[in-house]
Amino acid sequence: MKNVQTLKGFRDFLPEQMRKRQYVIGVIKNVFESYGFDPLETPALEYEDILLGKYGEEGDKLLYRFVDNGDRKVALRYDQTVPTARVAAQYQNTLPNPFKRYQIQPVWRAENTQKGRYREFLQCDGDIIGVDSPLADAEVIAVTAKILEELGFKNYKILINDRTIFEMLAERAEINSKDLLSVIRTIDKLKKIGREGVLNELGNKGFSTERAMYILQTLEGAQKTNRIQEIESYLTQLGINKNSYEYSPTLARGLDYYTGLIFEIEIPEYPAGSIAGGGRYNNLIGMFAEKQIPAVGFAFGFDRLLEAMDALSLFPNALQSTQVLVTIFSPDLIKKSIEVCTLLRKKKIKAELFVDADAKLEKQFKYADLKNIPYAVVIGPDEAISNTVKLKNLQTREQKKVTIKELPNEIKS
Amino acid sequence: MKNVQTLKGFRDFLPEQMRKRQYVIGVIKNVFESYGFDPLETPALEYEDILLGKYGEEGDKLLYRFVDNGDRKVALRYDQTVPTARVAAQYQNTLPNPFKRYQIQPVWRAENTQKGRYREFLQCDGDIIGVDSPLADAEVIAVTAKILEELGFKNYKILINDRTIFEMLAERAEINSKDLLSVIRTIDKLKKIGREGVLNELGNKGFSTERAMYILQTLEGAQKTNRIQEIESYLTQLGINKNSYEYSPTLARGLDYYTGLIFEIEIPEYPAGSIAGGGRYNNLIGMFAEKQIPAVGFAFGFDRLLEAMDALSLFPNALQSTQVLVTIFSPDLIKKSIEVCTLLRKKKIKAELFVDADAKLEKQFKYADLKNIPYAVVIGPDEAISNTVKLKNLQTREQKKVTIKELPNEIKS
Repeated sequence: MKNVQTLKGFRDFLPEQMRKRQYVIGVIKNVFESYGFDPLETPALEYEDILLGKYGEEGDKLLYRFVDNGDRKVALRYDQTVPTARVAAQYQNTLPNPFKRYQIQPVWRAENTQKGRYREFLQCDGDIIGVDSPLADAEVIAVTAKILEELGFKNYKILINDRTIFEMLAERAEINSKDLLSVIRTIDKLKKIGREGVLNELGNKGFSTERAMYILQTLEGAQKTNRIQEIESYLTQLGINKNSYEYSPTLARGLDYYTGLIFEIEIPEYPAGSIAGGGRYNNLIGMFAEKQIPAVGFAFGFDRLLEAMDALSLFPNALQSTQVLVTIFSPDLIKKSIEVCTLLRKKKIKAELFVDADAKLEKQFKYADLKNIPYAVVIGPDEAISNTVKLKNLQTREQKKVTIKELPNEIKS
Repeated sequence: MKNVQTLKGFRDFLPEQMRKRQYVIGVIKNVFESYGFDPLETPALEYEDILLGKYGEEGDKLLYRFVDNGDRKVALRYDQTVPTARVAAQYQNTLPNPFKRYQIQPVWRAENTQKGRYREFLQCDGDIIGVDSPLADAEVIAVTAKILEELGFKNYKILINDRTIFEMLAERAEINSKDLLSVIRTIDKLKKIGREGVLNELGNKGFSTERAMYILQTLEGAQKTNRIQEIESYLTQLGINKNSYEYSPTLARGLDYYTGLIFEIEIPEYPAGSIAGGGRYNNLIGMFAEKQIPAVGFAFGFDRLLEAMDALSLFPNALQSTQVLVTIFSPDLIKKSIEVCTLLRKKKIKAELFVDADAKLEKQFKYADLKNIPYAVVIGPDEAISNTVKLKNLQTREQKKVTIKELPNEIKS
């Protein structure tokens, strides 16, 4: 083959993988729709200004930026929250309020692929924009949980915290606001690097051992805020099991823009990090609008979600939808095969016609096997005369003679 | 509002528009799946080399190209045929043969937006790769027609031609192979600029009036090839009405890579150009593989398809899926509203909870109206005590008292 390849960190999704993705997207969409979230899509390219400076220094470096043919500075979508914030500002007078939207599109980041990261990956977000209520916070968590349940996850743990406890921390531990974000980013690594690691990193950032310890202990002992208590009571009323959520005062989340609730969801049987996460960001949309517009939302890590579903065998067995392959016995019998296939399609059976009349039957069966098609129909000279077909079960390899008239019901049953 | 805008030629798709798009995509996907076409996706970015030189000089100019952070020359997806050709070459030993795939992704072209063109738009393609049979040609036309029927189009006209008649033309009119593509591009404009226009343009390209006339008349009088006759007979057998297709020897199609069948579909009630088109391209995949791999395929002009559906009122009335908005009467009655909403969701009713307890009822009804939600539920103090709700029909503005127990069935009926 010639030198034909995809860029590192970019993927082709062949049919088998696509079917899994489509299945998950379908479930997510259905749940969003049933909770009153509306679909939204935004362009792949935005003016660079819209995206720059919204994701921190690290994020800016990972942006795909270039100058287009019209000398405009443009950048590829890096996430869906910032474009949605732009939309919420731009159409604030015509959108419903609250604006509940979901968005499922690829994003692009020039990540280090050696860390196993992709440069193009799908994001699935849900957000409620325009209200600051704890009820909206709870609803966002509830829809995330519902999606996981519909995907088949029996166990999940929702870790909940309130970013305002970090303000309490800043006051008690006398951390200035500039250092606070840095402290939060260190605390965020607690699960990954442990207590020791956090204390060390705080030390490196100039905090004395005593003060670092005080910071960590103050957080660990922090009481639930009223807001968290209210959100938790709504969660129970929304049908979320009490064992499924847990107050976690050291949960920090990396992103700078959170202002209230933050949450992450973990799958105990698949301990590879959180599978979804989000929080309240009341100041972000104000960067685009002339007033602050409160918002709360979350995103699924789509690839990790799929990995977890694979690991826990949560995909249905039959994602292939074709029910039957109508083979072609020989070039002079094409017409009969087309006739049967057309009949099956009229009867709403997903029937595929093998489109190469010169291929041997064996090759046609192999094709059906490769595509996991459960049945094949063969119409040879005998069958053509007697208006019958051979119906072959490709799993058991059994075959039986069926009249054309009976065939649709035979396949359906 | 601050200077917040999208790039020219790029669009936000707000919920109403999104629902139409999702509806059409859903229908297209279902038909593809029922005909045995498998889903495929390819990356937004490819090595520039993969795309350059495949779309003619004009196409190369419209490519979004840039140098990425790793100094690689990359380009954004310009169509789905070339990436699919790459995939067919790259995975030729593992894909089923024939490989029937559909692909629905955005593409990017730096078009002149003053001509009303978009720079980001969705393409919907179907292709059969690996066989050169007329049966595959017919199947591709049949699936296109089936999609149009499922979308509600009663009338469509499939124009069919065979690119090989241009070889016959070249021989008879003594056109060398270099000029032939140029002649084809002019003939392709026949519908747009008329006979006079074509003759003029051929004149400008150096053909004498007599020769230009000879070219046009030779084409207009060209007989169907055997291949076209065979394809037409399969179309009839596949259930396509004879009045729906028509041999059109002057149909040329702009793209250089077609080698056999070409076709376009027009909607007589929406005469704004073709809505879908395609053909056979047996030499393209060979540019990536070490051998020629025959292929036939087509693409829908997604935006034009939507415009035609709007013009002919083919969209279902109710694309909004939320069935009922559960309002919140006052902050002290939140719990009751959550309870009712959770119950409805358990009964598989698409129920949205209004998530702002401080909003007046009137505002909540307006919200439901804006989102075209058909019903609203109100639980005031009286209802809360008596385990009832007020169920309001937002179309008729009528409301009636219903027990919570009866509510799910009342909404379903």
